[in-house]
Amino acid sequence: MPQYQAPLPDFQFLLRDWLGLDEHYQKLGLHDFDFALANDVLSQGAKFATDVVAPLNREGDEQGCKLQNGAVTTPDGFADAYREYVANGWNAMLGEEEYGGQALPYTMAVPIHEMLNAANLSWRLTTMLTESTVLAVSRHATEELKAHYLAKLISGEWTGTMNLTEPQAGSDLALLTTKAQPQEDGSYSITGNKIFITGGDHDWTENIIHMVLARLPDAPAGVKGISLFLVPKFLVTETGEPGEANAVSVGSIEHKMGIKASPTCVMNYDNAKGWLIGEPHQGLACMFTMMNDARFQVGMQGLGAAEASYQGALAYARDRRQSRAPQGIQQPEEKADAIIFQPDVARMLLTQKALTEGCRALSLFYAKHMDIEKHGSDSKKAEAKPVLQFLTPVCKAFMTDMGLEVCSLGIQVFGGHGYIREWGMEQLMRDVRIAQIYEGTNGIQAADLIGRKLTRDKGEIMQATFTAFHELTTAIQEPELQSRAQTLLNDWCATSTECLTMSATDAAAAAHDYLAFTAYSLIGVLWYSMASKAQESEDGSIAKGKMNTCAFYEARILPRRDAHKAAMITGAETILSVSDSEFDYLP
Amino acid sequence: MPQYQAPLPDFQFLLRDWLGLDEHYQKLGLHDFDFALANDVLSQGAKFATDVVAPLNREGDEQGCKLQNGAVTTPDGFADAYREYVANGWNAMLGEEEYGGQALPYTMAVPIHEMLNAANLSWRLTTMLTESTVLAVSRHATEELKAHYLAKLISGEWTGTMNLTEPQAGSDLALLTTKAQPQEDGSYSITGNKIFITGGDHDWTENIIHMVLARLPDAPAGVKGISLFLVPKFLVTETGEPGEANAVSVGSIEHKMGIKASPTCVMNYDNAKGWLIGEPHQGLACMFTMMNDARFQVGMQGLGAAEASYQGALAYARDRRQSRAPQGIQQPEEKADAIIFQPDVARMLLTQKALTEGCRALSLFYAKHMDIEKHGSDSKKAEAKPVLQFLTPVCKAFMTDMGLEVCSLGIQVFGGHGYIREWGMEQLMRDVRIAQIYEGTNGIQAADLIGRKLTRDKGEIMQATFTAFHELTTAIQEPELQSRAQTLLNDWCATSTECLTMSATDAAAAAHDYLAFTAYSLIGVLWYSMASKAQESEDGSIAKGKMNTCAFYEARILPRRDAHKAAMITGAETILSVSDSEFDYLP
Repeated sequence: MPQYQAPLPDFQFLLRDWLGLDEHYQKLGLHDFDFALANDVLSQGAKFATDVVAPLNREGDEQGCKLQNGAVTTPDGFADAYREYVANGWNAMLGEEEYGGQALPYTMAVPIHEMLNAANLSWRLTTMLTESTVLAVSRHATEELKAHYLAKLISGEWTGTMNLTEPQAGSDLALLTTKAQPQEDGSYSITGNKIFITGGDHDWTENIIHMVLARLPDAPAGVKGISLFLVPKFLVTETGEPGEANAVSVGSIEHKMGIKASPTCVMNYDNAKGWLIGEPHQGLACMFTMMNDARFQVGMQGLGAAEASYQGALAYARDRRQSRAPQGIQQPEEKADAIIFQPDVARMLLTQKALTEGCRALSLFYAKHMDIEKHGSDSKKAEAKPVLQFLTPVCKAFMTDMGLEVCSLGIQVFGGHGYIREWGMEQLMRDVRIAQIYEGTNGIQAADLIGRKLTRDKGEIMQATFTAFHELTTAIQEPELQSRAQTLLNDWCATSTECLTMSATDAAAAAHDYLAFTAYSLIGVLWYSMASKAQESEDGSIAKGKMNTCAFYEARILPRRDAHKAAMITGAETILSVSDSEFDYLP
Repeated sequence: MPQYQAPLPDFQFLLRDWLGLDEHYQKLGLHDFDFALANDVLSQGAKFATDVVAPLNREGDEQGCKLQNGAVTTPDGFADAYREYVANGWNAMLGEEEYGGQALPYTMAVPIHEMLNAANLSWRLTTMLTESTVLAVSRHATEELKAHYLAKLISGEWTGTMNLTEPQAGSDLALLTTKAQPQEDGSYSITGNKIFITGGDHDWTENIIHMVLARLPDAPAGVKGISLFLVPKFLVTETGEPGEANAVSVGSIEHKMGIKASPTCVMNYDNAKGWLIGEPHQGLACMFTMMNDARFQVGMQGLGAAEASYQGALAYARDRRQSRAPQGIQQPEEKADAIIFQPDVARMLLTQKALTEGCRALSLFYAKHMDIEKHGSDSKKAEAKPVLQFLTPVCKAFMTDMGLEVCSLGIQVFGGHGYIREWGMEQLMRDVRIAQIYEGTNGIQAADLIGRKLTRDKGEIMQATFTAFHELTTAIQEPELQSRAQTLLNDWCATSTECLTMSATDAAAAAHDYLAFTAYSLIGVLWYSMASKAQESEDGSIAKGKMNTCAFYEARILPRRDAHKAAMITGAETILSVSDSEFDYLP
């Protein structure tokens, strides 16, 4: 597998031409930012991702993490790369300036995230969760807690974790039992066991800040009785340095299918000292500040892995020569043609490409709306927020499902070599498989989309999303592309509106297919929009490549949308009519 | 993950009722066989697979194989289980009676193969290739070679391997360079390197018989210059015992994504002594005797892994309690309902079930035609042969693609635990991933189906397949089911006929989608047929379960067929119009 290269030409086209970054920043009053700066940041980020992070990926998988004497060590080079990341300020990209952050727009940070994920999913994961921790502390913690923790989380001097899952409480947080006992000094004593804690311990930093969900003694049952606590690995002294060890320990680390270089810990809290974040019993809402960010970021993992797999497959298909192409000899000077000329191999590569570039456009469309939600006028903020609410589960679930498909195709292009660890293609598939599960399984995302985002507000959030995409279609210059985009979008909106009358049970049964139907539809709109904009490009490969890939998407990917539509309107009956003994015919 | 259990009730329904095994054997004059005997063999096979083979699977993955001092060792217990398999006569199931085989019908052996695959893909693989070796020796070798090798391969005293791939020659065997030099004693001196050789060495038997493709000195270039040779690890003495070591060595063993307990070897032949099998330059045809069998058997690996994953997911979904079902509280005495009551979880389980049981029916339909091809009258043989030719690539590719999907769904039902190695669900996905690649990638299968099986004979083989399925539909008692089955089958036939006029390039571009379109169509016909037959069953769970799963297949799986149809008729243009620089926009 060749060295990962950041797809800079595509980022440049998408940000400069398609998204219109200069105008976007101007409209938001972000006068310190423009495409030229973004492009510079992209180049630096690309250099860091390719030169520092990517080379650790293969060996990290082989070495994995180790737990010895209660402390976790990560593979060779991981801690050094992290320190370089922190020293270069990358960890602070999104943090508030007041606490030493750079407050970069999301449209600049999101491409960097994609690159880091593509370079090394395991390595990126811990920094991703620190960013989420920063969000939760920044929005919900007291000024005192912020003063103690925020600057060091933003700089990356310390990392953060999310502690939700317990053995009996995964998708259903109502069942969690970790307890928080108020102490006289205003702190809380936290006791319980958490599982699947990414970065629960490591050898990167002097302290780790755990965000822990637990119940206060007077907590009502269920999800309305959950509070959020900040629990440091080492208690922080008055001068802000790590001091006495807190009663937090790592029980074990998990043996996983992939992301082996990321330590996934069982965490034990045994009367550990913690501090309340936000109001009592409002922990879930506070955690969702992290969670929504983390969900989009997990979607970005799918995208990153997909890009890495596509690059590997493309390089191999250009290099590997087997048989002659059915359309005629392509490389007469060679004994056989490169397999990229085989229509079925090109089909696999273009499936990878159309899905990956489509999802990249989706991620930047999402990032643009994050910028607007943060910096726009009140009315613009109000327009952007529902778009983000609607698209979060779509990005998380579709981009990770897509990631698995694309990484599996990457293996297939390699043939037998794709199955051999040394080539790195199978690692991408193993690594990305978790992304469909964590931060809410893709089934949970689908239920969120159809149950909360679509139906709860009687379609308002969906309509806001329609409006945002409709605006995109009105800007399409090419009349034929515009007409197709609008037909597709209108059909999606009409079908979504029909779903509003579904019963809760039918909606739950339709959830998976509605999410996929939505994603294929909206990414179709993005493809028409990209293809039209690319026609204005002076770069012939962009102009023709986007147009041709759009045609491929329309002909060969978009039909899946109809299959999902057909499945989702059949109701819950064909699912719920199967009773217990009919599953396996055993008495 | 619970212990694998053979799905005996489904096998019994399919063999006794759906396939009509007693009548099938009577028609073929196989008077020694009936369903009662088959059922007894099934029970014994189930016991062996579950008690002996399955318990080795998880630990086998962790231990893997080792190469030390030129010899391969397999994980603890693997060799013992093999010896028990051989001692109990399982290896001889399909062998000719003249050489000590039991000559069981395929309809009895194929369910055993499914069970062994479900129990332990790695372990099964070596015995599978021995069966293929038996076929090639039995059909193409001289009587003298047969006398030396066949009985010991059939009993399992020795195992067999297939040596096709070389570093530069994978899908394109025309490029292979291994050389065979005729010797004065009538043997040949074989020199070359082969890669990806399953069971190339192991600690199970005293000898290993390699089937090796190589070129004679006077060989024409390309695939018409390839001959097949039998190359034993140890030269066989006049008394038939392993004697002097042959010049065959293991260069290394591969580090793989899965099937880690199966040794995948780089084999070096350095003037090794071998004997010609079949005619000079006819090696590919001889190898295809093995290959066609091996392709169907690889499809069976997809099916076996799918069944194992489904069983794991079903047990977990019945046991794991999270949240309440949207259709109402199901288990009021518990804090939450079992997740099987969540419509989206049931959707995943039923997708697994509908695909797995559909493919099981396909595998037994195929086995029935193998029985006919072997034992039927000449006219019946002539009818069965094209059906097998047509269905071989369908079984190989679709059942392995299906295997990956089902195993991935199994992980998803488990949530985070699915990603943890100890549970065994992720191993199934890693193990089954190779099946889409070896014995001809699924892309090669698709090209074979549309290029050779469909178009080369102007649709004759396809028409014979249509006739076989049409016969099945005429036996459907339920008029509504019959009508749907015939509509589906007729549409498939009409669409296939339209494909006959495609150019070679368009066909190559359509290949993948045509294969999937075909499989979803034909398995749909099998589902209608099963559902109708199940209505006559006295077993309520069979009667209702098959009917309800058929309804699920029709509502939620069959629509995929239309997406593949829509994609395949769009021609090669959207694939071939993308030129080199447009793939990555790099200059």
